[in-house]
Amino acid sequence: MINTDIIAEENDKNEANLRANYDALGEHLDRRNIDISHIKSKISSYGIAVPSWGVGTGGTRFARFPGTGEPRDIFDKLDDCGVVHQLTQATPSVSLHIPWDVAPTDDLNAKAQQVGLSFDAMNSNTFQDHSGLAHSYKFGSLSNTDAATRQQAIEHNIDCIEFGQKIGSKALTIWVGDGSNFPGQSNFSKQFERYLDSAKQIYAALPEDWTLLTEHKMYEPAFYSTVVQDWGTNLLIAQQMGDKAKCLVDLGHHAPNVNIEMIVARLKQFGKLGGFHFNDSKYGDDDLDTGSIDPYRLFLVFNELVEAESDPDFNPMHMLDQSHNVTDPIESLMASAMEVQRAYAQALLVDRATLYGFQDENDALMATTTLKHGFRTDVEPILAMARLEAGGAADPIAAYRKSGYRQKVSGERPVVSGAGGGIV
Amino acid sequence: MINTDIIAEENDKNEANLRANYDALGEHLDRRNIDISHIKSKISSYGIAVPSWGVGTGGTRFARFPGTGEPRDIFDKLDDCGVVHQLTQATPSVSLHIPWDVAPTDDLNAKAQQVGLSFDAMNSNTFQDHSGLAHSYKFGSLSNTDAATRQQAIEHNIDCIEFGQKIGSKALTIWVGDGSNFPGQSNFSKQFERYLDSAKQIYAALPEDWTLLTEHKMYEPAFYSTVVQDWGTNLLIAQQMGDKAKCLVDLGHHAPNVNIEMIVARLKQFGKLGGFHFNDSKYGDDDLDTGSIDPYRLFLVFNELVEAESDPDFNPMHMLDQSHNVTDPIESLMASAMEVQRAYAQALLVDRATLYGFQDENDALMATTTLKHGFRTDVEPILAMARLEAGGAADPIAAYRKSGYRQKVSGERPVVSGAGGGIV
Amino acid sequence: MINTDIIAEENDKNEANLRANYDALGEHLDRRNIDISHIKSKISSYGIAVPSWGVGTGGTRFARFPGTGEPRDIFDKLDDCGVVHQLTQATPSVSLHIPWDVAPTDDLNAKAQQVGLSFDAMNSNTFQDHSGLAHSYKFGSLSNTDAATRQQAIEHNIDCIEFGQKIGSKALTIWVGDGSNFPGQSNFSKQFERYLDSAKQIYAALPEDWTLLTEHKMYEPAFYSTVVQDWGTNLLIAQQMGDKAKCLVDLGHHAPNVNIEMIVARLKQFGKLGGFHFNDSKYGDDDLDTGSIDPYRLFLVFNELVEAESDPDFNPMHMLDQSHNVTDPIESLMASAMEVQRAYAQALLVDRATLYGFQDENDALMATTTLKHGFRTDVEPILAMARLEAGGAADPIAAYRKSGYRQKVSGERPVVSGAGGGIV
Amino acid sequence: MINTDIIAEENDKNEANLRANYDALGEHLDRRNIDISHIKSKISSYGIAVPSWGVGTGGTRFARFPGTGEPRDIFDKLDDCGVVHQLTQATPSVSLHIPWDVAPTDDLNAKAQQVGLSFDAMNSNTFQDHSGLAHSYKFGSLSNTDAATRQQAIEHNIDCIEFGQKIGSKALTIWVGDGSNFPGQSNFSKQFERYLDSAKQIYAALPEDWTLLTEHKMYEPAFYSTVVQDWGTNLLIAQQMGDKAKCLVDLGHHAPNVNIEMIVARLKQFGKLGGFHFNDSKYGDDDLDTGSIDPYRLFLVFNELVEAESDPDFNPMHMLDQSHNVTDPIESLMASAMEVQRAYAQALLVDRATLYGFQDENDALMATTTLKHGFRTDVEPILAMARLEAGGAADPIAAYRKSGYRQKVSGERPVVSGAGGGIV
Repeated sequence: MINTDIIAEENDKNEANLRANYDALGEHLDRRNIDISHIKSKISSYGIAVPSWGVGTGGTRFARFPGTGEPRDIFDKLDDCGVVHQLTQATPSVSLHIPWDVAPTDDLNAKAQQVGLSFDAMNSNTFQDHSGLAHSYKFGSLSNTDAATRQQAIEHNIDCIEFGQKIGSKALTIWVGDGSNFPGQSNFSKQFERYLDSAKQIYAALPEDWTLLTEHKMYEPAFYSTVVQDWGTNLLIAQQMGDKAKCLVDLGHHAPNVNIEMIVARLKQFGKLGGFHFNDSKYGDDDLDTGSIDPYRLFLVFNELVEAESDPDFNPMHMLDQSHNVTDPIESLMASAMEVQRAYAQALLVDRATLYGFQDENDALMATTTLKHGFRTDVEPILAMARLEAGGAADPIAAYRKSGYRQKVSGERPVVSGAGGGIV
Repeated sequence: MINTDIIAEENDKNEANLRANYDALGEHLDRRNIDISHIKSKISSYGIAVPSWGVGTGGTRFARFPGTGEPRDIFDKLDDCGVVHQLTQATPSVSLHIPWDVAPTDDLNAKAQQVGLSFDAMNSNTFQDHSGLAHSYKFGSLSNTDAATRQQAIEHNIDCIEFGQKIGSKALTIWVGDGSNFPGQSNFSKQFERYLDSAKQIYAALPEDWTLLTEHKMYEPAFYSTVVQDWGTNLLIAQQMGDKAKCLVDLGHHAPNVNIEMIVARLKQFGKLGGFHFNDSKYGDDDLDTGSIDPYRLFLVFNELVEAESDPDFNPMHMLDQSHNVTDPIESLMASAMEVQRAYAQALLVDRATLYGFQDENDALMATTTLKHGFRTDVEPILAMARLEAGGAADPIAAYRKSGYRQKVSGERPVVSGAGGGIV
Repeated sequence: MINTDIIAEENDKNEANLRANYDALGEHLDRRNIDISHIKSKISSYGIAVPSWGVGTGGTRFARFPGTGEPRDIFDKLDDCGVVHQLTQATPSVSLHIPWDVAPTDDLNAKAQQVGLSFDAMNSNTFQDHSGLAHSYKFGSLSNTDAATRQQAIEHNIDCIEFGQKIGSKALTIWVGDGSNFPGQSNFSKQFERYLDSAKQIYAALPEDWTLLTEHKMYEPAFYSTVVQDWGTNLLIAQQMGDKAKCLVDLGHHAPNVNIEMIVARLKQFGKLGGFHFNDSKYGDDDLDTGSIDPYRLFLVFNELVEAESDPDFNPMHMLDQSHNVTDPIESLMASAMEVQRAYAQALLVDRATLYGFQDENDALMATTTLKHGFRTDVEPILAMARLEAGGAADPIAAYRKSGYRQKVSGERPVVSGAGGGIV
Repeated sequence: MINTDIIAEENDKNEANLRANYDALGEHLDRRNIDISHIKSKISSYGIAVPSWGVGTGGTRFARFPGTGEPRDIFDKLDDCGVVHQLTQATPSVSLHIPWDVAPTDDLNAKAQQVGLSFDAMNSNTFQDHSGLAHSYKFGSLSNTDAATRQQAIEHNIDCIEFGQKIGSKALTIWVGDGSNFPGQSNFSKQFERYLDSAKQIYAALPEDWTLLTEHKMYEPAFYSTVVQDWGTNLLIAQQMGDKAKCLVDLGHHAPNVNIEMIVARLKQFGKLGGFHFNDSKYGDDDLDTGSIDPYRLFLVFNELVEAESDPDFNPMHMLDQSHNVTDPIESLMASAMEVQRAYAQALLVDRATLYGFQDENDALMATTTLKHGFRTDVEPILAMARLEAGGAADPIAAYRKSGYRQKVSGERPVVSGAGGGIV
């Protein structure tokens, strides 16, 4: 963890400017009849999960260029995640990926407590062949034509649930790469039948207070068809399973040009929006930092979420899911968590009564201007003040760099050589 | 209609070559253990509807360049459609669009009988402001924020059903342009609520033996959001309505790169595939001639349809829906009907038992080769022979040109000036 | 024009708040070592052209829903454009479209002077068949296979130059719809040869101090291929023509996912960036209001422009080019001009020395944060103050609505009925 | 290599059917005034290169599922490539990738002679960090901000040329992953300057009879911008370098919906089409088997190539470049080489004089029908007969399976465990 003196020192440097900016924004919002402290308190109580695998450097099929101090195991990862939360006060939980993060659950619970984190949704993995597996997932997992392979995948998911129960998780997220690379390779209907059969068996093992989240994705790793290719199929799955089954939306898993905020609205309306994997993308599932490519789209998603927030039954899970290929993963996770907060704060600023009025009158120009009024407000002082008050850093990136954390763990963790050669 | 002597004369020119090609193909298929006459009989009994509006020259928002002999009304259109069917023997029915095709139903029935056609699905129109309407559809129809406008749109659809009952139609197809051009212009959830409420009122007026087909489309005329934007929303509508409600798939209404044949498979699997609008596209809803851009994709759609053919409850409606901007519409409709037949014939050639075997074994290469074996077979002799035997033309385009039909109607129908100026 | 008393009255209502916001922003920028008055003066001297056709309600191939008070001719249009500039002080020039705007040039000059506007680039039109033309553009204009049709199109463009010379224009913008709807319809190489031959003849007629702007577009109205389909072909044209020929970039004319700001950078780097048509889009050439869908993309384009601003030879033309289908066109043009100013002001705020430093060190996170720091600053007070000081309206939309201009012209200009029926 | 007895035996099984099919096709083509033996001789003399890396199982960033008998080194790879050519007689050359394929050049030449292959273009690799490199390519190679890193990349490319000269290669293909993942990370103009400077140094080292091929790609591994992102930038590079520099087109490296055959036509027209990487794709750079997704698009590319074939200066290089994730790579390469031949043969069947006539008359329907007439002809008998006569297999896949080659090498080459874990 970061020495709190360093955080305090860094905060001291920023505090005067921050207070000036915060006060000015407060006065500005006051002129718009918005209470800044109300927004700040919403931000303070907002948290987003980080994925355990997000603290390692990501890569592509062409190459991976590791940084220094790459985490060696889940305990190193929890240390890194702890830093992200310590400085941002925005990421109180971690989502584990099995089998990557398998460890004694007592040790996990102890470590989590030590670094101030809890455990979010469990993630199963049936898109890789882990050592020791009897059956390969080369041709699919839950929808494989081979019953034994399906059974292996089902059991793995049930294991994930059992593992999660020991660490306080309340959800299982299933993403599979099942699909096909050639027209005709798979029979679409039979393949989906098999998927549904397998999913039902997992659902049957789900504790009462758990949620099953299934995730759709248009393509990759399969390049002709994917079993759960879009929200339509995802919805069918959730409908077939039951009330505890909901859909997870990853912002990068859609066809080009698709209106994602509308998919969010539809799933919300029909009670099937279970959670998010936040990231950003320009081309495909680029897994770039949230809000780095199209921050307005992120805002429009949060606009849908804020609209539903008064509904007590509406409580989708929020997680970052990114691949950090050219940045320090800790920095990207911090910046991304703050971008999510920013979009949330901006969406909170939208004057909804006014918006609804313009919508009812078909005053398109003023309706969109009302939304934009929220978006273009610079809410950074709110976010920074919330961090400051919670004991985090006003400027987390600067404090992190000042702390020397990366250099420290680089001394402790061995150098990883460039990997990924030849998977082209 | 075309003088049958001309058809006969033209057929005489082609017959020897056709018989040689047909016999050679028959022998070739025999070596593949396929009975050519079985395929031919399937083609002979296959029919696809043409849209009444398809026989006029289409255009874009930039311009329309009419041809000569443009049909003046539904009776001219039925003449043209009659020619398409006479020569191809593939398009026995016509789909009407209201109010464009409003006419005394007795006259319509008489005319249809005269030209050898029947009436397919009715199409309502609430995406334009027709003269005399009390309320504008500028801001939507079935989902308009104004109740009176919604009511007007509902009643129009019910009128279409009543109209259709008098001419033997058994289905109503609803496509609306409702959506928005700006983020915030419309509230996604409320707008869809209104759509569903309106649709339920139409559904309530549907005769027992009718089908309600709703059509999704990603965008255009609305450019930020569309109420029925994809098959996921379309499915929700069909589910909310009831058993008589099904989804219509237009091949050009999807996001870039989307696997359309898979959507067909999903709707098929869940009993909600109601019909098709066939066309082709490269960019958006280009409404190009069916099979002109990606004939293999068309084949893959038919591969799904042939697979389900044995199910007696599976009977989706087939229609061409194209915009003929640079060709003689009659020629394009004939060519397109034949392309649909071609895809169907090729899909019939697929050895399904062999295919399923390869699928079960995950032999991707041989599975896809098995599909391709059907696709790459030149089935033209089968199509031509089916036409010949049914009294159509072996080469419909050549016979049509020979007949001078276009010149004849150009003399009877007044010249239409270039239209469309200024809608940019 | 709007009564200046109304503007003053409205400004009075806003001024106190505006001054408070402006002062607060000034102090904030001061803390970032930025002089707010410098930014304001850049904004004050910035102007963007509006297209004459932009003040009429647009539409799609499905329908057009005119508003009230639609301009009847170029003089009405200039009145409307005058209002846009009067209130925003951001749109000092108008771009004419021939033959739509043909009128005695003396009258045009007088009217322009009266409403305080000048004339920007001329736009030729060979994508429609205007009455009285000997040859149709159905199958293309500058690249038509018929020499006489090409000659007609060439002469029309030369006429546009001559027309423009009489009204002070200094540029001709050519956009053609030439292309094809079917594979094989056109020979790509021969068609482009013909285009280049025609363009050279127009270029030969270009006055020394004029610029020839050619505009690329991926598709529409042609749906299989377009002669000038992308910036690569556009670049070839500009290279083949000569120094006075440059490329025009319309933000909505690209393939999905394309990095437009990079195209801007490339054309800039090689001296071939001639101008812009600003708008926004989600799907295709949607012609939505600038910045309404992806404001960050607009900012990134301006980031490229600001970078080159110090180069005296760099002076691309800026124009709005939008289709206003659901809003009052005057309002959309005002809002869009302000969005362009906003992006420009935000790009001016970027600390370029710092940015270059991060770029050189491959500090991706801080580099992108530096850009975003500019983007997320709410520069509205700067824009409003610049307007106020120049005699415009602090809140142009409110002042316009208050003025009753639309109601006034609705009384003077006849009602236009819903058009566009049947071009589907 | 495969025992020729097995090939002969397999051919014996097929020969009677093949001759019947070939004769029937010959008669059919005769009725179309086409000499089948002319087409066959063109096919017989056509060859396409295979990439050395294509015989290993590919993967994605998520996982790689190796097959059995994976080649251990370039000599194993040459064995596998030899089999591909032996059975198809269509792939007489291999393209090496450095440093993956580094080996004593005498040994390479000897091995190539033994397996009946020659060497095609050399491929450099500066998108991965190979062991022992002084500088990392994490932030780019030829365009890196660091001069020493650029120099290292330049020298590597020059090494590749020198290596290639010893094995009879005549071309260097450069593909780099340089780009950025965040707006602002890289300065587009400076980055491209650096790229051009580096490329010029490589070009300066190019022997007189060599060609420099540069390859563009829209995205991946960089996900916000790529230095050589499209054919426009690629063209600028080739123009800046000189006559020996040409553009390489990979069919999967384009934006969605882009008309690739038109890019081929443009580069051809301006003398800058240097070569192809053939494959197919549905979403991004999927690297699927050539012709497996959109065979008509492949045909349209070959339509452009056949058109230019009579020009003696037109001689672009042809190579397959695919990732075989779920098939036996040898099978996929054989099938793909045959798909390329198929498209070529079909394009040769197009009656060009007739086509040009329809194009000149703007008879779009008959022009496209003329193209399709070539495409829909089943040319398999021509391809199979060409193979048979050249000593290859009538049915290469069947002969290969019969031969037991995979089982044999699986016994000799050690099992490779599932790789790729964790690069997500």
